[in-house]
Amino acid sequence: MSSVTMEQLVALAKHRGFIFPGSEIYGGLANTWDYGPLGVELKNNIKRAWWKKFIQESPYNVGLDAAILMNPQAWVASGHVGNFNDPMIDCKQCKVRHRADKLIENALAEKGIEMIVDGLSFVEMEKLITEHKIVCPDCGALDYTEIRQFNLMFKTFQGVTESSANVVYMRPETAQGIFVNFKNVQRTMRKKLPFGIGQVGKSFRNEITPGNFTFRTREFEQMELEFFCKPGEDLQWFEYWRAFCRDWLLNLGITEGNIRLRDHSDDELSHYSNATTDIEYKFPFGWGELWGIADRTDYDLKQHMTHSGEDFNYIEPETNERYVPYCIEPSLGADRVTLAFLIDAFEEQKLEGDDSRTVLHLHPALAPYKAAIFPLSKKLSDGANQVFADLAKHFLVDYDEAGSIGKRYRRHDEIGTPFCITYDFESEQDGQVTVRDRDTMEQTRMPISELKAFIESKVQF
Amino acid sequence: MSSVTMEQLVALAKHRGFIFPGSEIYGGLANTWDYGPLGVELKNNIKRAWWKKFIQESPYNVGLDAAILMNPQAWVASGHVGNFNDPMIDCKQCKVRHRADKLIENALAEKGIEMIVDGLSFVEMEKLITEHKIVCPDCGALDYTEIRQFNLMFKTFQGVTESSANVVYMRPETAQGIFVNFKNVQRTMRKKLPFGIGQVGKSFRNEITPGNFTFRTREFEQMELEFFCKPGEDLQWFEYWRAFCRDWLLNLGITEGNIRLRDHSDDELSHYSNATTDIEYKFPFGWGELWGIADRTDYDLKQHMTHSGEDFNYIEPETNERYVPYCIEPSLGADRVTLAFLIDAFEEQKLEGDDSRTVLHLHPALAPYKAAIFPLSKKLSDGANQVFADLAKHFLVDYDEAGSIGKRYRRHDEIGTPFCITYDFESEQDGQVTVRDRDTMEQTRMPISELKAFIESKVQF
Repeated sequence: MSSVTMEQLVALAKHRGFIFPGSEIYGGLANTWDYGPLGVELKNNIKRAWWKKFIQESPYNVGLDAAILMNPQAWVASGHVGNFNDPMIDCKQCKVRHRADKLIENALAEKGIEMIVDGLSFVEMEKLITEHKIVCPDCGALDYTEIRQFNLMFKTFQGVTESSANVVYMRPETAQGIFVNFKNVQRTMRKKLPFGIGQVGKSFRNEITPGNFTFRTREFEQMELEFFCKPGEDLQWFEYWRAFCRDWLLNLGITEGNIRLRDHSDDELSHYSNATTDIEYKFPFGWGELWGIADRTDYDLKQHMTHSGEDFNYIEPETNERYVPYCIEPSLGADRVTLAFLIDAFEEQKLEGDDSRTVLHLHPALAPYKAAIFPLSKKLSDGANQVFADLAKHFLVDYDEAGSIGKRYRRHDEIGTPFCITYDFESEQDGQVTVRDRDTMEQTRMPISELKAFIESKVQF
Repeated sequence: MSSVTMEQLVALAKHRGFIFPGSEIYGGLANTWDYGPLGVELKNNIKRAWWKKFIQESPYNVGLDAAILMNPQAWVASGHVGNFNDPMIDCKQCKVRHRADKLIENALAEKGIEMIVDGLSFVEMEKLITEHKIVCPDCGALDYTEIRQFNLMFKTFQGVTESSANVVYMRPETAQGIFVNFKNVQRTMRKKLPFGIGQVGKSFRNEITPGNFTFRTREFEQMELEFFCKPGEDLQWFEYWRAFCRDWLLNLGITEGNIRLRDHSDDELSHYSNATTDIEYKFPFGWGELWGIADRTDYDLKQHMTHSGEDFNYIEPETNERYVPYCIEPSLGADRVTLAFLIDAFEEQKLEGDDSRTVLHLHPALAPYKAAIFPLSKKLSDGANQVFADLAKHFLVDYDEAGSIGKRYRRHDEIGTPFCITYDFESEQDGQVTVRDRDTMEQTRMPISELKAFIESKVQF
């Protein structure tokens, strides 16, 4: 339904209080963004919807909230200290810095050549640059430094001296906080396999070229599940979570035609992975990854066993069989999926005559306001305020008394409020209000006493 | 009711899945902590309870979620680059580093002298050390370096070069993310004074001496409100929020005798503050600050006006009066208040005979599990699982079939589950279950169809 441009979306997000440029009064800071009053509600609702399905309702999974700062040894074990690098190249003429693989991919794509450069050696990449005469997109020169590794972890110093012994990293993913707690969680929660541990939290990656609004930012939020199972049962659980993730998106209203499941081919798979699927969304700037679902086998737990000396073997209570569990990881970007929900919900709708409206068809579970209460006249504010206060105990609702009812409808259409409730002079007598549906624009008369149950039924998913 | 020691609490937190030492398998990392499956639920419930009362139900306030990484100019304006320092001193003999003010305060306290050293000059502090012969608590020597400033902000490098131009800080407080967005929020939400902006999020301070479990950690979470009002009306709003915060704690079950409101004296007040009150909790290690409520006048907005050139004047719609709003800031530590709720809820209860139990009397709104479902026999798992699945759509509930019912009661008493629901053979016939109350231990027979409404009524506050 949506054919929004990024310009339209960024403008709506800014002007309606969803997403502001970070530190805007100081000219911003690279690609940081602040979630405004409506954005924080939308994103919180998305995080809660994830928690509800992946933790609360799940008979398998429990939650966790590990610290952002971890012992650096954890990042040695995970491979991030050694291998979490991007290939960096500088133009000697204009001094602009590029990610070499992206530089090459983009240049080749313009010539109609599709190629995944990630994974090639630096020598191979440099050869491609020379062969295809790939010039600097900023100044047009063909005069680069050598390609070098750039580690994407932000580092800082803990304690009071800036020595290398005090270096700590801002976590580049939430996953490792789960792996290091595998035994703590399994033991204290008396969990038997299969079971999962989920976490929502901030991660940081020092991307060379962040961009596309909130799609690629250096500071971002993840919703990750690490699901542990018996080796040999991993591929069936992989299929289970792959379908589960897809259904979560569809149940919350994502248009089926706007997502695709891209299975990694054998030569694209990490050496330790048995299977990986990316769920991608059709953004205005192209297909982009929302969710990576990977069968990581016993790679992570074994890495931590080797580096920490801790025993992560699991002993089957019935058979006494002993093994290191396999792990399925569905990893979702909270900012990316928030962006996808916004884009997917957006519609510029032609109405009868010359009229039109902008409407966000957000699922009621995700909409910032579940309802808006409109007194038809300021004389009715006592009664209307009572409706507001009663509903506000259960949902975030707005109270809006400015302008005509029509203008108030348009304002709330644009921010995705599913129900507008008008309190009029008759309401004072009969205890009924007019409930107007955002999507159908139909109006229904309803007793005030039924509003809570009505909204509650609509936010279920 | 509580007389728990820190050792007891830390042990319970670890063994029952509330709070684990961070990066434990690698020997930990300073004073970092990971919230386990029950801890994350407790802390999330506390954050939701804050959001519910301070944002959702408030006719004044809206939320925000600003980035952790901000333009460094924001920290120049706020004064953190220049003044957010602790006085640091090293023992030349054993090389141990101390916070000079705390070193002196502790030593004087042992001699029965109560004194607030924070605010004295370095020369005055060094004079106190010499006068009172304050030796190093680690080695007993009286041989120190000079006192030096140590800035508490964690710094890192953004982008691909580690030059000073790329230094960014991990925010030491969430408040400044609110101030820089004052205009964005006011305009997009069409807010009139008075109104507030609230935020929940992580902050980082490179404390010289973190400690006391989760009370003082380098990585911590804040729940801050910045409430803007007309100058002259600030003291009455200060009183309003001071009482509001106190009531929030009491309504969620904090024992009145375990908190105190400490008003800052005139010489303790910051130069820009008209009034400040700390709400303190009686921790096992002494009184400690939970909540700082401060009338910050127009200090912060004016600082940002000066440094950014942005105009933060507010124009009254009725009178066209023009002024920079005053601001009341209630700032609460999420980890500290979580710790306070745990301590306050803890009881070792003597029962009839020689029996006893450990029970956490957490308010049902805060308890990790709202209920636990016990099948009396494994033969009843179908019916009991159905009760679990129906309730899990609305609340986090546990399913527990291990051990005797008595053992299961004890297990859930210890983690604060307010209601244990036993599904027995009769339940199959009459659709009723036994609901046992955590605090009174009374048992009531109740129709399964009424469970949802019953629990819903209990989690209200």
